[in-house]
Amino acid sequence: MRLATLHDGSPDGRLVLVSDDHARILPGPVATLQQALEQWNALQATLAAGADQLASGGGEPLGDRTFAAPLPRAWQWLDGSAFPSHGAMMQKAFHLPPIETDLPLMYQGMSHQFLSGTDDVPFPSEADGIDFEGEFGIITDAVPMGVSAADAMSHIKLVVQINDWSLRAIAPIEMKTGFGWVQAKPCCSVAPVAITPDLLGAAWSNGRISLPLRVWRDGALFGEPNGSEMAFGFHELIAHAARTRSLPAGTIIGSGTVSNDDQATVGSTCISERRGAEIVAGGNPQTPFLRFGETVRMEARGIDDVLLFGILEQRIVQA
Amino acid sequence: MRLATLHDGSPDGRLVLVSDDHARILPGPVATLQQALEQWNALQATLAAGADQLASGGGEPLGDRTFAAPLPRAWQWLDGSAFPSHGAMMQKAFHLPPIETDLPLMYQGMSHQFLSGTDDVPFPSEADGIDFEGEFGIITDAVPMGVSAADAMSHIKLVVQINDWSLRAIAPIEMKTGFGWVQAKPCCSVAPVAITPDLLGAAWSNGRISLPLRVWRDGALFGEPNGSEMAFGFHELIAHAARTRSLPAGTIIGSGTVSNDDQATVGSTCISERRGAEIVAGGNPQTPFLRFGETVRMEARGIDDVLLFGILEQRIVQA
Repeated sequence: MRLATLHDGSPDGRLVLVSDDHARILPGPVATLQQALEQWNALQATLAAGADQLASGGGEPLGDRTFAAPLPRAWQWLDGSAFPSHGAMMQKAFHLPPIETDLPLMYQGMSHQFLSGTDDVPFPSEADGIDFEGEFGIITDAVPMGVSAADAMSHIKLVVQINDWSLRAIAPIEMKTGFGWVQAKPCCSVAPVAITPDLLGAAWSNGRISLPLRVWRDGALFGEPNGSEMAFGFHELIAHAARTRSLPAGTIIGSGTVSNDDQATVGSTCISERRGAEIVAGGNPQTPFLRFGETVRMEARGIDDVLLFGILEQRIVQA
Repeated sequence: MRLATLHDGSPDGRLVLVSDDHARILPGPVATLQQALEQWNALQATLAAGADQLASGGGEPLGDRTFAAPLPRAWQWLDGSAFPSHGAMMQKAFHLPPIETDLPLMYQGMSHQFLSGTDDVPFPSEADGIDFEGEFGIITDAVPMGVSAADAMSHIKLVVQINDWSLRAIAPIEMKTGFGWVQAKPCCSVAPVAITPDLLGAAWSNGRISLPLRVWRDGALFGEPNGSEMAFGFHELIAHAARTRSLPAGTIIGSGTVSNDDQATVGSTCISERRGAEIVAGGNPQTPFLRFGETVRMEARGIDDVLLFGILEQRIVQA
């Protein structure tokens, strides 16, 4: 099933089910996606019936209504960095010390606001090194502390597509403190349609989303690496996060920048990784960070080339 | 004025005003503290009238009702590390590289749950190195992105007292990744009564709380450093946090472990700092981390020795 949230003037918006072409909607059985995640199992049959109704042509046209992020705000956003090729390139290019851990990398980010797929994105200054990061993510129901990776799999209720905006002039300074990122990681954007993993078919395997994430910068394809190369699956990221805390329903966990070993062919889902390749190739970085007025588009397509998560295409503006 | 939240079975509890001895309460003008912070200026007169009513003997006895944390969950928790003597001791004792930044240190922590002043505190394992960290904190109303430190002062609506539980066997591993802490920083506890800064009198100055924070471990005084030695005031921590994001009403910002240069006399508000001093004195660390069954109490007293934030005394238990 496909779920989305309509802008309705309230902080959490209004939950709707969405048709496969994202053109028709049906009101959800509860007001918000947060509420649905809190009562997920009890609502399963009702949600499934709604999805069936949409599949047989029911519902109403979206019309001029607009989508917010699936969760316009969430109680928790934990972002992994699960693609080894991304970390390896950043270390090589920027002479960072290798990160010595066998555990997943993860930081806690701001979760009180997620921009929608069409909102302008405000930043205070181009000098901060404005960059995008294309990611896949999942949303959980309530997860008990100490959950195993195997048991965590059943807590993955929805899959989402995320742009984790990053400020590259600030990120290394904050990283060196060991405290993680505050200023370098402002508000993320989330594509409007959250889907259940079954809609991914064979592309959902071992807690990974084996599909290309395609990114365009100002209309030019920037990269299309595949989500398959995660060193840890989302179920393992959940178990890592829940080692010493319970996770509330509506926890969003990100994959980190989607990246492949074969960057030379598939490109990157962030500017910094491409700049890293330019440095490693023996030169100075050639690709500039974003300027106000530029647009960034990201999409993923599934079975029969269907657009899975809707439109995530935004313009960078001065705050 | 003094505000608190009663346990009522709901996730956000029920807002009450509290008398100076914390024994009498009056229902708040809105249901939750979160709502009050969202409408703070509009509610000022009503809240002040309630406080006057309590001051003249009004309200009803607390009775057998119990306090939750002032915000049992919040949209954002950002913790500073604003006491230079704490960082200096940790670096010296544990041979950490110096943190080279002129900016405040700050990480984003989990905010979907705050334990109350009397809840048992569950941890999975004593081997994780269970420690307390005594802190002061503030709660803001909505703060715009880019706020100046001077303008940030007026966004400090409430002052709170926090125990930022920390797991010392995990913390340095996560810190070395540069990603900050997830596993090492589980759920914090917050003393039940949040107060407006005016109740601190002269102890509220330049965005700092110049009062001793007293900590007892299993009944024995462990430390009583003063909150005055912050390198940055809370207004400066707010401006730092809001450099690239707006802050939602109900943002909690912590001081970091309260610590003084004169640790030898005043002691520490965390075990790790004392262990650091034991190492620097030429030996092995003598003071063990917490064991299941131990209790930790923290309090701060103001004018006329009045207990400011109520009781924060909790027992450590196995999860």
